[in-house]
Amino acid sequence: MTNYDHDPAVDATLISLNELEVRLRLPAEAEQVRLLYWNKYKTEQFGVQSQPMTLWAESEQHRYYRTILTGMESRIRYLQYAFEFKLEGETRWLNTEGLQSTKGFKGSYSYAYAGDRDAVQAPEWIGDRVWYQIFPERFCNGDLGNDPEGTEPWGSEPTRDNYMGGDLQGIIGKLDYLGRLGINALYLNPVFTATSNHKYDTVNYFEIDPQFGTIQDLRELVNKCHERGIKVVLDLVINHCGFYHPYFQDVVEKGEASAYKEWFYVNNYPVERSEEDYDSVGYYQWMPKLRTSNPEVQQYIYDIVSFWQKETGIDGWRIDVADEVEISFLRELKSCVKRLNPNAIIIAEIWDDAKRLMMSGGVDSVMNYEFRTILFDYCLDRSITLRQFHSRLVRLAHRYSLKELHQMFNLLGSHDTERILTRCGENGDKLRQIMAIQFVFPGNPTVYYGDELGMTGENDPGCRGSMTWERSPEESDLFGYTQNWITRKRENPLLQSGSLELRYREGSDCYVIRRYMGTDEIVLLCNFSADRLALAPELSRFDLNGSYNICDFEYTGDLPENIEPGQCLLFQTVK
Amino acid sequence: MTNYDHDPAVDATLISLNELEVRLRLPAEAEQVRLLYWNKYKTEQFGVQSQPMTLWAESEQHRYYRTILTGMESRIRYLQYAFEFKLEGETRWLNTEGLQSTKGFKGSYSYAYAGDRDAVQAPEWIGDRVWYQIFPERFCNGDLGNDPEGTEPWGSEPTRDNYMGGDLQGIIGKLDYLGRLGINALYLNPVFTATSNHKYDTVNYFEIDPQFGTIQDLRELVNKCHERGIKVVLDLVINHCGFYHPYFQDVVEKGEASAYKEWFYVNNYPVERSEEDYDSVGYYQWMPKLRTSNPEVQQYIYDIVSFWQKETGIDGWRIDVADEVEISFLRELKSCVKRLNPNAIIIAEIWDDAKRLMMSGGVDSVMNYEFRTILFDYCLDRSITLRQFHSRLVRLAHRYSLKELHQMFNLLGSHDTERILTRCGENGDKLRQIMAIQFVFPGNPTVYYGDELGMTGENDPGCRGSMTWERSPEESDLFGYTQNWITRKRENPLLQSGSLELRYREGSDCYVIRRYMGTDEIVLLCNFSADRLALAPELSRFDLNGSYNICDFEYTGDLPENIEPGQCLLFQTVK
Repeated sequence: MTNYDHDPAVDATLISLNELEVRLRLPAEAEQVRLLYWNKYKTEQFGVQSQPMTLWAESEQHRYYRTILTGMESRIRYLQYAFEFKLEGETRWLNTEGLQSTKGFKGSYSYAYAGDRDAVQAPEWIGDRVWYQIFPERFCNGDLGNDPEGTEPWGSEPTRDNYMGGDLQGIIGKLDYLGRLGINALYLNPVFTATSNHKYDTVNYFEIDPQFGTIQDLRELVNKCHERGIKVVLDLVINHCGFYHPYFQDVVEKGEASAYKEWFYVNNYPVERSEEDYDSVGYYQWMPKLRTSNPEVQQYIYDIVSFWQKETGIDGWRIDVADEVEISFLRELKSCVKRLNPNAIIIAEIWDDAKRLMMSGGVDSVMNYEFRTILFDYCLDRSITLRQFHSRLVRLAHRYSLKELHQMFNLLGSHDTERILTRCGENGDKLRQIMAIQFVFPGNPTVYYGDELGMTGENDPGCRGSMTWERSPEESDLFGYTQNWITRKRENPLLQSGSLELRYREGSDCYVIRRYMGTDEIVLLCNFSADRLALAPELSRFDLNGSYNICDFEYTGDLPENIEPGQCLLFQTVK
Repeated sequence: MTNYDHDPAVDATLISLNELEVRLRLPAEAEQVRLLYWNKYKTEQFGVQSQPMTLWAESEQHRYYRTILTGMESRIRYLQYAFEFKLEGETRWLNTEGLQSTKGFKGSYSYAYAGDRDAVQAPEWIGDRVWYQIFPERFCNGDLGNDPEGTEPWGSEPTRDNYMGGDLQGIIGKLDYLGRLGINALYLNPVFTATSNHKYDTVNYFEIDPQFGTIQDLRELVNKCHERGIKVVLDLVINHCGFYHPYFQDVVEKGEASAYKEWFYVNNYPVERSEEDYDSVGYYQWMPKLRTSNPEVQQYIYDIVSFWQKETGIDGWRIDVADEVEISFLRELKSCVKRLNPNAIIIAEIWDDAKRLMMSGGVDSVMNYEFRTILFDYCLDRSITLRQFHSRLVRLAHRYSLKELHQMFNLLGSHDTERILTRCGENGDKLRQIMAIQFVFPGNPTVYYGDELGMTGENDPGCRGSMTWERSPEESDLFGYTQNWITRKRENPLLQSGSLELRYREGSDCYVIRRYMGTDEIVLLCNFSADRLALAPELSRFDLNGSYNICDFEYTGDLPENIEPGQCLLFQTVK
């Protein structure tokens, strides 16, 4: 069978100055897979070393392996490696020149020297994060004094252009609530001055939109968040600005005489608000595209980033429509952000395969819409088989180092999608099942404001409704379920940085996600079939036998014999 | 059969703002392969378009396709694409989600917006270049006045540390000779002040080594080269400097009190010349490694690059041991070099797969040692079969866009290898065969000084002998052969930018490289067997029938019936 993957069979990621994560896809017949490695200048001193590779997933055709290769010195230098395995009883070797029937040094893979800034740059704080995304206009109105003219009552039907008065003081006032929910990282949709309710059409990058408050409010929010151990990430919208941004208005007014004409992609003069006259995001004329290849634009963006990082101490940026931004510029931007604060994080908005961006050094993490799509295709739509579901999850996970996977922004919905409960056809059981996978799969789970209380809504504007505060959110069943998962994620190192194993049994429609570290493990079993399944055959694959707890709070007591249709059970070894 | 490639089945490279080269590897059974594409916001206006993909190589298991996708507008925007083909009589589609049995928009590949600086940056001059590499100490002594003390007579046995007096005036004096040879690009090994004869241990980056001349000599060389249409590229050795560089000496003298201690990787103080005290290139203590993550070091290197580009007008840089340099820094360096001159080129020294570096935006081109290894493994050593030779050439070519291949630095030898004639066991016929492939394969062929007259020598120091000028080089048979290939490469657009097809017939040990453009084509046939082969079956695969010239100057006259053992014949259509 030929493999159609756009991902390579062999890949490696420098995850620290002394660790290279090596990933390998082999035919399903391969066995006893080992990584051989040596220092090309030090074979006398260190010899050729080897270590077994870990089989973490199998498909019909392939077996997937990972291992972390630790250099012989304090930093990876002159490391060379190749793979050794059994194939139909014969020992075979794989190197850059292909499959070999003899062992040798020639043609090996190599990593010559671990560059200071070339390893995956994971800030120390990323591991145990659960994100909470807030659309500021709709979360909470904390200051009636800054409400725009015509503000509609809280709870009104959201439209593309109405206002309900949400602001930064509103968020500050709900930090206790967020603390009880348990989240420890906030991502705010744009807060800089703009003309719309979503603020993606920036007019002043150096000012908090007066409808949301002041820079002092943001400082207060960041400080109070930091006191509570909550990180804060802002939306950086630099692919484009707003039509009413003064520099673009200067081009509209002065045409070719404008000092800012090279800041945009102008096609015709005079410039009117039209699709033809200038490039914009998705041909949407209210948002003219910025020319990031222009050094003046670059400096302007560095000034924005520097201003807010220095003035408010925020912890990073989510880059809007990152797939439309020059990759060359994203790399430069990342250097700038990290120079200001090596612990700041950059998350890119990407709706499909993000490898190109991640590999070219542009970003730390992405909004993992691809993960969401895979979940929905199988768990909600059944437009793919369990085998395809498994294959796509495995391909996603094979594409990145575990360290990169651990900092993915794993979302089920956002301001740009229908709400998750709506997407689940308002079926809470399905939502719970999907959330279980979201929280057990590697990465940082994300809660879109209000999803924890079962808010519903179609895509924009429906998904941007005002948060329901009238009855205590804590009374919602879903709140408790979400809160439990958040606690578990935050408290359980296995869910934060455990290794990954993915398995399925086709006949049974049962899917298994296992996270482990040494002899500790946690296993999620999902029954996707319409039938009750006996638990024993699934459990017997793992080392759980004898000593486990059932963590699923839908079920307490002794080990059940069966797993019910639609149920997810979480097992953890007990020491 | 599972595929072990570390290269993906599907890959795409932005080769201009409006062109995406798409590459695809399919099972050998695939037929009628088409690329479907559309603009996701403009399907009503432009519809879904499609174009056939070109089959350019086949192996036992796979078929390899390429095509250049031109967007619907002046720049690629919101482009989405997928593949359609027949498999066992059924139409199938391939997208990011895998093989599909129904056609649809979901899961397509995409390219959202072509960033100004994200396309392959090929300077206009690269297409027809043939490089000539000069090791300055050994090419020609043009100024006896700058010979170092103890200079040995020209023609002495080269050793690791002797001097023979070569210099920049020597090169200037031989430009007529180089003009007759026909080369049109020079790569010089380092010329900045250093203590060794090879000058890789720089002591002063802002000075031409007095043994080689002055900055005025370099200006004269560059100007005279430019008058003759010859480009000049210098060696940039910034992974490390020399032990006697004043900044490193400062660290040796002052230890932790030195202002330059963060410029290097010091492990212990006081610093003595030892493997333990500091990192160096390949543990070679005379060359301490520079810390390019230090902004002061970055600025120092930008100053070097800027000084020489502005002061002398050189056309680019070859980056020494690029695989040991921080990739993050290489990207920044490239931005700096291109800002100074968008037509400057950066070539990396890489001995193996260069994809990681090319893809991460670090360099324009690499010293294609991988190509050389493949040629030697089969043509000289027969350590692989013709099938493996083909498979490895195809994998190399599948890894890059044709535009990138066209600017590869395709060398047969260098100052770091045995000379090519020596590598060929002094068998001139083998050398001629390898050169034919070197000049017909995409990329810029390179002549290492003296190889055109059949100089011999083992690896360093043997390969660094003084150039033989005593008898006229032009009298050498090899000179004429080389000169002919250079002329052909420079005059024939097919050899510069023609598309590529690779074929072999296993039974016959005959290998075929075809370059074509529209209906024009040029075909190289190589008989690697010990037998005379009938020509007809090979030729019948191509459109040459009836009208061709035999370009191989070893053979003139009517079409031969056979191709002799070891012979290479070059055919071109005649209009």
